[in-house]
Amino acid sequence: MSGGLDSATCLAVALADGCDPIALSFAYGQRHAAELEAARSLAAAAGVEHVECQIDLRAFGGSALTDDALEVPKEPGPDDAIPITYVPARNTIFLSFALALAEVRGATAIYLGVNAVDYSGYPDCRPEFIAAFQSLADLATRVGVEGGHVEIRTPLITSSKAEIVRLGHELGVDHARTVSCYDPDEQGRACGACDACRLRAKGFADAGLPDPTRYRSRSR
Amino acid sequence: MSGGLDSATCLAVALADGCDPIALSFAYGQRHAAELEAARSLAAAAGVEHVECQIDLRAFGGSALTDDALEVPKEPGPDDAIPITYVPARNTIFLSFALALAEVRGATAIYLGVNAVDYSGYPDCRPEFIAAFQSLADLATRVGVEGGHVEIRTPLITSSKAEIVRLGHELGVDHARTVSCYDPDEQGRACGACDACRLRAKGFADAGLPDPTRYRSRSR
Repeated sequence: MSGGLDSATCLAVALADGCDPIALSFAYGQRHAAELEAARSLAAAAGVEHVECQIDLRAFGGSALTDDALEVPKEPGPDDAIPITYVPARNTIFLSFALALAEVRGATAIYLGVNAVDYSGYPDCRPEFIAAFQSLADLATRVGVEGGHVEIRTPLITSSKAEIVRLGHELGVDHARTVSCYDPDEQGRACGACDACRLRAKGFADAGLPDPTRYRSRSR
Repeated sequence: MSGGLDSATCLAVALADGCDPIALSFAYGQRHAAELEAARSLAAAAGVEHVECQIDLRAFGGSALTDDALEVPKEPGPDDAIPITYVPARNTIFLSFALALAEVRGATAIYLGVNAVDYSGYPDCRPEFIAAFQSLADLATRVGVEGGHVEIRTPLITSSKAEIVRLGHELGVDHARTVSCYDPDEQGRACGACDACRLRAKGFADAGLPDPTRYRSRSR
């Protein structure tokens, strides 16, 4: 649960599916705490348990999202390149922790808000990555050995951002609580210029829904 | 690099293979710091870089190795059961971090000291788990997408403990620096009664090599 549009919508889908979910967030050396605050706010609004896990990806570096020496780009990169905001093996790490939590709590599904449309440049957002993790999960755990199954569910993987905005709207997601910006200020206000801000603004525009995003004044 | 016999031997194998390894250890809410001290000592003795990563598996609970409410068993359990010392999804989490580090540093292999003989009760020590993680690693990373490969190597997976002791001896591992006990005291002295202590003692005995393990007096 990052606190962005996709994870907020994913939580709403899990609730609509009749699940009793636990929201899992990671403090992984992000540049900002605004997205963790958003995740807390969304979990509280939904009335679900929220587990926060501290992991130190900053020690590894290699991404603009975890390495202070790298700048978050404010212009689109080449279409076929893996963005510098890609965090090495991030979804592998996040899913591994989710699998551990699922095993300890007896959960039978993990919902993950990955999206292969907008994040086609991220290797670990692709359906084939999710399928490989499912195979791994079935072998890695006590529940798997005992004949059970923890199902990895990615309800948004083929959705456009506009579809995610509309679905969230239908399911009652309070979009004002979500933060998408890669580089928000201390008040959680968005830069309006990074990849994530551009995708989000286009999503609301394409969906024909009002965009409640708070922007820093200098960016608009 | 846990600081036990297997990871110490694995490091020696990587060096013998001509690699320039980085030792990676996890502080994951273990009951004791003795094994991290052992890992530091072994990495220093080998002259290799040592990365320590803090992760909070204790928050999840569910294992006698991370949950203070659960006792480390001092008698063997039933042969076919997954031991209570199994940490949910632990090797999945450890390998995910190793994959991230490999990607950031441009490493082409990950050495893991898992063993399917002595730890047959742990789902994530089996060859089929390692094969599934290899498939995942090839899909999960930038290097995989770009046609590269990070190879998961498990040189000890089919070895007996006696074979591991002998191999370590041949490769110059200082066994006195290793700690195997699940429940050592603050000085790193072993209990002599847990599964890990029993396996280790039998390994040295079967190998016909002197056992340098320091035991607490009350256990002997």
